[in-house]
Amino acid sequence: MSGPPAPQSAPARRLTELLAPVAGDLATVEGWLQSQFEPSDEALQPLLAHLGRFRGKRLRAAQVLLVGRACGGLRPVHVAVAGIIEMIHAATLVHDDLLDGARQRRGQPCLHERWGAHAAVLLGDWVYARAFLRSTGLEDGLCSRVLAEATGRVCRGEILQNLSRGRFDLTEEEYMEQIDGKTGALYEAGGRLAAAYAGAPEEVAAAAAAHGRDAGRAFQMMDDLLDLTGDPERVRKSLGTDWAGGKMTLPLIRLRERLAPGLRRRLETAFQAGGDPGILRREPFRGPFEEAVEECRSEIRALLVRAASSLETLPAGPDRDALARLTEFLGVRPF
Amino acid sequence: MSGPPAPQSAPARRLTELLAPVAGDLATVEGWLQSQFEPSDEALQPLLAHLGRFRGKRLRAAQVLLVGRACGGLRPVHVAVAGIIEMIHAATLVHDDLLDGARQRRGQPCLHERWGAHAAVLLGDWVYARAFLRSTGLEDGLCSRVLAEATGRVCRGEILQNLSRGRFDLTEEEYMEQIDGKTGALYEAGGRLAAAYAGAPEEVAAAAAAHGRDAGRAFQMMDDLLDLTGDPERVRKSLGTDWAGGKMTLPLIRLRERLAPGLRRRLETAFQAGGDPGILRREPFRGPFEEAVEECRSEIRALLVRAASSLETLPAGPDRDALARLTEFLGVRPF
Repeated sequence: MSGPPAPQSAPARRLTELLAPVAGDLATVEGWLQSQFEPSDEALQPLLAHLGRFRGKRLRAAQVLLVGRACGGLRPVHVAVAGIIEMIHAATLVHDDLLDGARQRRGQPCLHERWGAHAAVLLGDWVYARAFLRSTGLEDGLCSRVLAEATGRVCRGEILQNLSRGRFDLTEEEYMEQIDGKTGALYEAGGRLAAAYAGAPEEVAAAAAAHGRDAGRAFQMMDDLLDLTGDPERVRKSLGTDWAGGKMTLPLIRLRERLAPGLRRRLETAFQAGGDPGILRREPFRGPFEEAVEECRSEIRALLVRAASSLETLPAGPDRDALARLTEFLGVRPF
Repeated sequence: MSGPPAPQSAPARRLTELLAPVAGDLATVEGWLQSQFEPSDEALQPLLAHLGRFRGKRLRAAQVLLVGRACGGLRPVHVAVAGIIEMIHAATLVHDDLLDGARQRRGQPCLHERWGAHAAVLLGDWVYARAFLRSTGLEDGLCSRVLAEATGRVCRGEILQNLSRGRFDLTEEEYMEQIDGKTGALYEAGGRLAAAYAGAPEEVAAAAAAHGRDAGRAFQMMDDLLDLTGDPERVRKSLGTDWAGGKMTLPLIRLRERLAPGLRRRLETAFQAGGDPGILRREPFRGPFEEAVEECRSEIRALLVRAASSLETLPAGPDRDALARLTEFLGVRPF
């Protein structure tokens, strides 16, 4: 699909409202990022400019900015931390898109579609290296250490997920371990770094980290739930890709656990065949699947409640409230 | 090919002799590396164990150890620096092997052959992240900073090389820029870090860095030369892969420059067709190609002379002499 960008949907408008308190700071981060992606390096310039055009919702940057403001105020280091985290996230997306055979991201052809697999792997590597280099230029080693550790966890989560493709017997603990790394780790790191660089005491930094971890998990669980249950018109991304790719996610695990052995084997056969997950909306699976989905919603809700209670350790104020509203919105209705 | 390892060739025996002064320290680095590749992480363990089995000649580690000894003596940090550099090198190899469609490395199936492209990309990413994490645990930020910068240059060199595949008009400056990043950057970083962590003054660290950069360039130029001219029995790796993959290297650039327009077009047609580079050994290319090869040997020799003269800034002694002999050997006859 090409053509002019679609008008903002209602959730997108709501997100813009929620990000309003840090809109100016987000623009500063965006400028910092563009300066990383538009270096005076003629040879890499076309690839980096392409990468810079993906932009994104910059939710990780928004988290860093809101936590920093809530915990004592933003300093220039927060802009760099937010930008570095977005660079690491961008590198993972370049590699993911290649490996998933994705064609487009945010209306742009994926990097590998235009420049090939070599360029996609190596540019992702370059972006990781550049992100680490920027972290080494900060006032101390905290950012480098926390983000190197988090990046390892992100990669590990992705590896575990890929090694377990097609495994109908995936346990809930294994699933949680995967999403913890894949999505929880960077949000956890962002919360910790934003609080620490705002001068918050360890107790507050630990609470900001816990908020990030639980929120990240909730976002990923909602993403996985929508992949099976979402309305394509509202979600605005391709759905059913987890089922088609042999990825067991929480709704399927919970459904499996509700089924008697015979039906369980039927579900496994359909799962192994891939294709369309429409079987989940037909009898005899429809009822237990709806129950499983409700259970997932409860789990997500419980994570969001815990994330909100972690936030109570942060200093009260409008920035903490804005972060709470943003977390709630993203956990209930991502897009 | 499987079966028992081949008996050591004469150059391999000579390399073992040259590395003898640091054999004990290299074993310590190997132990450090194996501890990175055999973590108590059950899920990643099979992949990491596989990676650990590649081992390698550990030439980058040997350089760090010899420079460190020559510049004031080894400290525990040298083992970590040597290991971290080898980890970064290993990560680049995992990605290169995948992108080049290689089947084997050092008698083991490549990681992607056994575990798929997903695992190869993501495990390479994990190894990068782990290498950076280890660097953040050292006594100061020097290693993190220097290696993040060098890793970016390695990736950049690889990207440039891949973007220029099939470009018969590649300039010598572009070629040098590619190998400078691809191979020069990590040896340059290794020389600088080894000298600095041995307490050497900046002048000596700069000389060790310059030695590494020139030596790395010479090694890569010899590698590229052997790809076109080597005896498969002696070199023990597949040859002609650069030509087949559309990579212009120095011998071809120098040959191109010697040819009149008509022959130049014939060479270009053969280069674009890929296949076997046997045309270079037949008339009318044979004579000018031999001259081009001799020019390349002179260039390599000049780099080795300059590398040797950089070494003279390091304190005189048996370790400096051992490093000089190792550099000379690798620049003249890698395998």
